[in-house]
Amino acid sequence: MTELTRRAALAGVAATTLMPLSMTPARANAPQADKQAPSFYRYNVGTHQITVVCDGVTVVSRPDNYVANASKDEVSKVFADNYMPADKATQSYSPIVVNTGSKLVVIDTGLGPTNFEQSKGRVGQFQTNLAAAGIDRNSVDTVIISHFHGDHINGLLAADNKSAYPNAEIMVPSAEWKFWMDDGEMSKGTGNPILEGNFKNARRVFDALGRKVTQYDAGKEIAPGITSVASPGHTPGHTSYIVASGSDKLLVQVDITAGAAFLFVKNPDWQLLFDVDKPLAVQTRRKLYDMAIAEKMPIQAFHAGFPGHVRVEKDGNGYRWVPALWNTSL
Amino acid sequence: MTELTRRAALAGVAATTLMPLSMTPARANAPQADKQAPSFYRYNVGTHQITVVCDGVTVVSRPDNYVANASKDEVSKVFADNYMPADKATQSYSPIVVNTGSKLVVIDTGLGPTNFEQSKGRVGQFQTNLAAAGIDRNSVDTVIISHFHGDHINGLLAADNKSAYPNAEIMVPSAEWKFWMDDGEMSKGTGNPILEGNFKNARRVFDALGRKVTQYDAGKEIAPGITSVASPGHTPGHTSYIVASGSDKLLVQVDITAGAAFLFVKNPDWQLLFDVDKPLAVQTRRKLYDMAIAEKMPIQAFHAGFPGHVRVEKDGNGYRWVPALWNTSL
Repeated sequence: MTELTRRAALAGVAATTLMPLSMTPARANAPQADKQAPSFYRYNVGTHQITVVCDGVTVVSRPDNYVANASKDEVSKVFADNYMPADKATQSYSPIVVNTGSKLVVIDTGLGPTNFEQSKGRVGQFQTNLAAAGIDRNSVDTVIISHFHGDHINGLLAADNKSAYPNAEIMVPSAEWKFWMDDGEMSKGTGNPILEGNFKNARRVFDALGRKVTQYDAGKEIAPGITSVASPGHTPGHTSYIVASGSDKLLVQVDITAGAAFLFVKNPDWQLLFDVDKPLAVQTRRKLYDMAIAEKMPIQAFHAGFPGHVRVEKDGNGYRWVPALWNTSL
Repeated sequence: MTELTRRAALAGVAATTLMPLSMTPARANAPQADKQAPSFYRYNVGTHQITVVCDGVTVVSRPDNYVANASKDEVSKVFADNYMPADKATQSYSPIVVNTGSKLVVIDTGLGPTNFEQSKGRVGQFQTNLAAAGIDRNSVDTVIISHFHGDHINGLLAADNKSAYPNAEIMVPSAEWKFWMDDGEMSKGTGNPILEGNFKNARRVFDALGRKVTQYDAGKEIAPGITSVASPGHTPGHTSYIVASGSDKLLVQVDITAGAAFLFVKNPDWQLLFDVDKPLAVQTRRKLYDMAIAEKMPIQAFHAGFPGHVRVEKDGNGYRWVPALWNTSL
């Protein structure tokens, strides 16, 4: 033992001896966790199995025109009334996986690895939660894209900028491809930073995939038991889905209420900044919700709080979501 | 190769050759899951960490007097309005774990291994979900029991009929111990099958533990930052809790609304069959909900749908729960 070490050791003993007991912090027998539970959830629609796989939640600064036709204060009040920071936008993102028995289908892909980095892990969690659900991305047969906003398409690419689903057919709405991949439409969008960003981002993602996609039309069965439903407004080719198996049906609404979606459930005439054709988005929203109510159809909502398995009901001039009870068995 | 085997092999080839392609069922690249996601969820209250650990959900046949002061049809309507089977009672069970930093505390224990067998795994999931949350039952320092109904105490015992928490102090409300463990009270309960069953079950559980418990009173800090709050009615010594850390507070309501709890949130004057002192249960329910509203306190509710982290608001003559948004990060 060197003198230095011996002295240090003696000093250590002295320090310990001198520290009163009350200063020794008690410790629980187990440490606190630093991670949330994996955020996935399953339910069946007939013989189809849905796995909701959350991509994350963001609490972001909110532009004053977040709702184009309501004042900042009106919008702040709804956030505060829902126990969220009044001056921010709190937003959830939940893609789903449908196992039809014959196909393993991913519908939308979340914000992907780039946004995972930017958000310090708050979003871009889809792949982690998919793996926690025991689903290998290499086993995915089909990826259906609803529309070309980044929170739906960015996750098509893995961290190496190659397909995150190397063995899957990528299916995109033909109306969406026609709009976002058209150079004429892109030049018309010049000067609108939201549109410009989305035009560029769609090209970034699909160019990395060599534009190898299958285009699909609305009103078709595009995978077993999964029918595309035109729901334009949020974007020109925005598409929802009906998953049907036996007598069971589910409306996969996607973004007919988007962003902090609960705002637009309560106030369906409000127009989200990101809706490309705002009056059409309002019309589509009311049409699909009225259909779901008339047909007593449950809904899977991308931007509802996870797991986003809800019913919609009329509530005054608007609607309200009724979340399904979490079931601990299948 | 024996003749038999060779013939069988040839027959196999023939059968395969003859089967038309359309008869070969397509298979997705991944099988469907047979299990739900592990049902646990975390959030922080100041520096205290809450882990909600679900014990399961039951859908059981409902006695006509499930609500003592409402008709079968009125009750059926509320279940149907909430998209649940009208003639059954759908009930969720969610104990919690609180890591105070210095103590790892379980509050209530679920239905335990016996009911796991009986329900074919629909309840008694607490230990499985606790393990999924990375919490070792041997690390638990303290188990706090709110009241002596089976869904709160049965999980004190493991499958071997010994303590499921061998290293923990078991804390019980003194008023609850006084009522259920008293032979005079037990004989007064004779002829009431619900009371009889609960008197016998409390003895079964606590006798197996050698009656080694610490009794606590209401209105005391019984673990760091955890204060007991008298909330009698559901049972004589039924206890709720306030978890406080820094400026954050949480009301752990336990069973001030019990069974299919949402019925009694909407109709707080309704009396659950299992409430021992029904008018007092109604009074306690309103008192604690009005307090939570006045103090803007979030609530953790044992019988709410998992995860049961909610706010309560006035709604006409009753209340409504507003579930907290699922957060994917801590």
